Amino acid sequence: MPHQAVIRANDPKLRSWVPVPEGSDFPIQNLPLGVIVYNDRHRVASRIGDYVVDLLELNKSGLLGVDYPDAVFDNEFINDCIGMGREAMRDLRNRLSRLLDDRHDELRKDVDLRERVLLPINTVSMSMPVRIGNYTDFYSSKEHATNVGSMFRDPANALLPNWKHIPIGYHGRASSIVLSGTPVRRPLGQTKAADQDAPVFGPSKQLDFELEMAFVTCRSNELGEPIPIDEAEDYIFGMVVFNDWSARDMQSWEYVPLGPFLAKNFASSISAWVVNLDALQPFRVPGPEQEPKPLPYLQFKGDQNYDIALEVLIESPRFNPARICHSNFKYMYWNMVQQLSHHASNGCNIQVGDLYASGTISGPIKDSFGSMLELTWRGTEPLKMPDNTERKFINDHDTVIMRAYCQNAEVRIGFGEVKTNILPAHKA
Amino acid sequence: MPHQAVIRANDPKLRSWVPVPEGSDFPIQNLPLGVIVYNDRHRVASRIGDYVVDLLELNKSGLLGVDYPDAVFDNEFINDCIGMGREAMRDLRNRLSRLLDDRHDELRKDVDLRERVLLPINTVSMSMPVRIGNYTDFYSSKEHATNVGSMFRDPANALLPNWKHIPIGYHGRASSIVLSGTPVRRPLGQTKAADQDAPVFGPSKQLDFELEMAFVTCRSNELGEPIPIDEAEDYIFGMVVFNDWSARDMQSWEYVPLGPFLAKNFASSISAWVVNLDALQPFRVPGPEQEPKPLPYLQFKGDQNYDIALEVLIESPRFNPARICHSNFKYMYWNMVQQLSHHASNGCNIQVGDLYASGTISGPIKDSFGSMLELTWRGTEPLKMPDNTERKFINDHDTVIMRAYCQNAEVRIGFGEVKTNILPAHKA
Repeated sequence: MPHQAVIRANDPKLRSWVPVPEGSDFPIQNLPLGVIVYNDRHRVASRIGDYVVDLLELNKSGLLGVDYPDAVFDNEFINDCIGMGREAMRDLRNRLSRLLDDRHDELRKDVDLRERVLLPINTVSMSMPVRIGNYTDFYSSKEHATNVGSMFRDPANALLPNWKHIPIGYHGRASSIVLSGTPVRRPLGQTKAADQDAPVFGPSKQLDFELEMAFVTCRSNELGEPIPIDEAEDYIFGMVVFNDWSARDMQSWEYVPLGPFLAKNFASSISAWVVNLDALQPFRVPGPEQEPKPLPYLQFKGDQNYDIALEVLIESPRFNPARICHSNFKYMYWNMVQQLSHHASNGCNIQVGDLYASGTISGPIKDSFGSMLELTWRGTEPLKMPDNTERKFINDHDTVIMRAYCQNAEVRIGFGEVKTNILPAHKA
Repeated sequence: MPHQAVIRANDPKLRSWVPVPEGSDFPIQNLPLGVIVYNDRHRVASRIGDYVVDLLELNKSGLLGVDYPDAVFDNEFINDCIGMGREAMRDLRNRLSRLLDDRHDELRKDVDLRERVLLPINTVSMSMPVRIGNYTDFYSSKEHATNVGSMFRDPANALLPNWKHIPIGYHGRASSIVLSGTPVRRPLGQTKAADQDAPVFGPSKQLDFELEMAFVTCRSNELGEPIPIDEAEDYIFGMVVFNDWSARDMQSWEYVPLGPFLAKNFASSISAWVVNLDALQPFRVPGPEQEPKPLPYLQFKGDQNYDIALEVLIESPRFNPARICHSNFKYMYWNMVQQLSHHASNGCNIQVGDLYASGTISGPIKDSFGSMLELTWRGTEPLKMPDNTERKFINDHDTVIMRAYCQNAEVRIGFGEVKTNILPAHKA
């Protein structure tokens, strides 16, 4: 990873000739990648302010100064584009930044081209950005693991013996990951209350969110060949906000001994724009101290955490969005290069377009907990909503909104949101 | 599922004009699908005796009597072909059977075409048949779950309370599933012996196989829409032999609380030919009694188990293949339609080209156990090899061979084999 000073597109002094509203998640210093649908065609695009940038049209114009293959932008997914690699994506972002910079007018002055390239966000729809190959969910927040261990096992020994040695993770279902805005149906499943003799099949009564971030990979290793931790960052293209929907009552009945399965795989939701890891460089921070010291293959250099503010809101037909949690990605105990290098330490092959989620991101105080399970302490301390109703978990017709952004005195780099409405379960 | 009598290609009296050696896994009643590489091109193919059938050439000839799109055969994978659906695959197999039947000579008499369509197996190489989207591994053998529970938990309560209610499963890694013949490298990983204070990182000392079968899906459901158990069979195209490589020492340290991860995802191995479920219809048998009776969504009609003989052999540079286990797929407690319907009961979306493995298939007696863990009872009762060495687990340079076949008085339907050589670990 080069020093951030060499990433020209990160210069906080840059201003664009494209109008960017005050407080926008998408200033010229962001320039994420996503997929838009426009005139029934999918296109790989970037975003600035309230405009999307059609990268196919821009590539065809020649103004980028490099001829990328049109097919990487004329595509349903960003996979082929990011598969060009971390350096190519850095270069693309720098070139795009230059064309949008108010000191340059090559694009600005060509009115016809500008109208084909810059489309108002409300004239396009968004599509899943990544064709997700394999999806892994980690469990890397110490506060979350401690809360769960305290509730379900032993408060005095909340963390299991392996937790501080291994970035614990498990494989999840890629097919059911959906875009922000896609409604999610409450799942049916088996549950067994402690006072019941036998399980029943019906709608989950403990539908929960998990506040997570996830990274998308842009490089593959050969099966059998580990990824040294100092090289791991070159495999990470960027990040999204991730809601790992969970049915707690199904989970507690099914998860022994092989882990969560139907309690999770009915749906997970991601935000539409993948923020380039380059854009997050000004927000690197040290992580929590790791004690005991991890094994050598997990020892990293430099600051590997990121200061990303996170919040969760609930909206309902009966009230406007109400914030119920604010957390921060910087709390993560295990960082992304540790997660990825651990994942490949046995030779497991990482591929372009894999998704690696963080696990629930909980902070040290109660309103920073990243799930209803923790916020209501397993339903024992319900949250009060603006209409004076209570929530132990998520109700039908509730909408859960997660937002993430980095902010300092000079710039705000945001992820937009992941927003999901819950539909009632089918009849069992 | 139609009564087997309507599947013309299953008629045991059929004989082919293509020579089929005595005891071949691939008589005219089989006709599986696979992918061959020939002149650097991938082709979807079938197999009879020691010949492969180039389905692209055959389709182009018009002799199949239906024009399938060439692209489904001119393909690196069978996904687009089987994605035409269960009925279309039944029809294709029946049409192919007719052309190979010794009472018909349309193909036989056209010498030029015949030589393009029928290629000796030793003139082609095999390639991964399926682009695997999502991979799930079940845990459906009661004998296996009981053995594992006895060894690691409590012999008096070996099965966990949920086991007889839920076809327990977990998500695995699709990217690292490789074809028979692909060597597998012994993984590095964290392990911690009971008498150690802290874990160490190094080569697994307990590398094991798991004898499994797996089915491949050919139809998708919409996310949120369950698959009723009576419709589940229509989603299953066919089956392969599956070796779920496992590093037992890594597994026991990492698997709490979220299940196996790096202990499994370094590699799994599959056989090259996917046997159409139609070809297995003469081998349907009742399964074990299920007591307690499963919940209504898991109650099935008819015989849903299959009598498939299974064996595992170890070969080494120092001795010829020695059989160490023979088991049978008919022992499975939970059957395939229960597994698939359970998987989709929460609305999880099944896709064309997913792989669903059975879990280790152990029978009731010791030499029917499907893993070294069970055969040597966690290493306490090593197996004697032909060269008088012992095996607790699998050694470097050992080759593990798994075979599967159905046999009755009239016909043998085989799966070929999955054969894997173990390479020594990299330096830690």
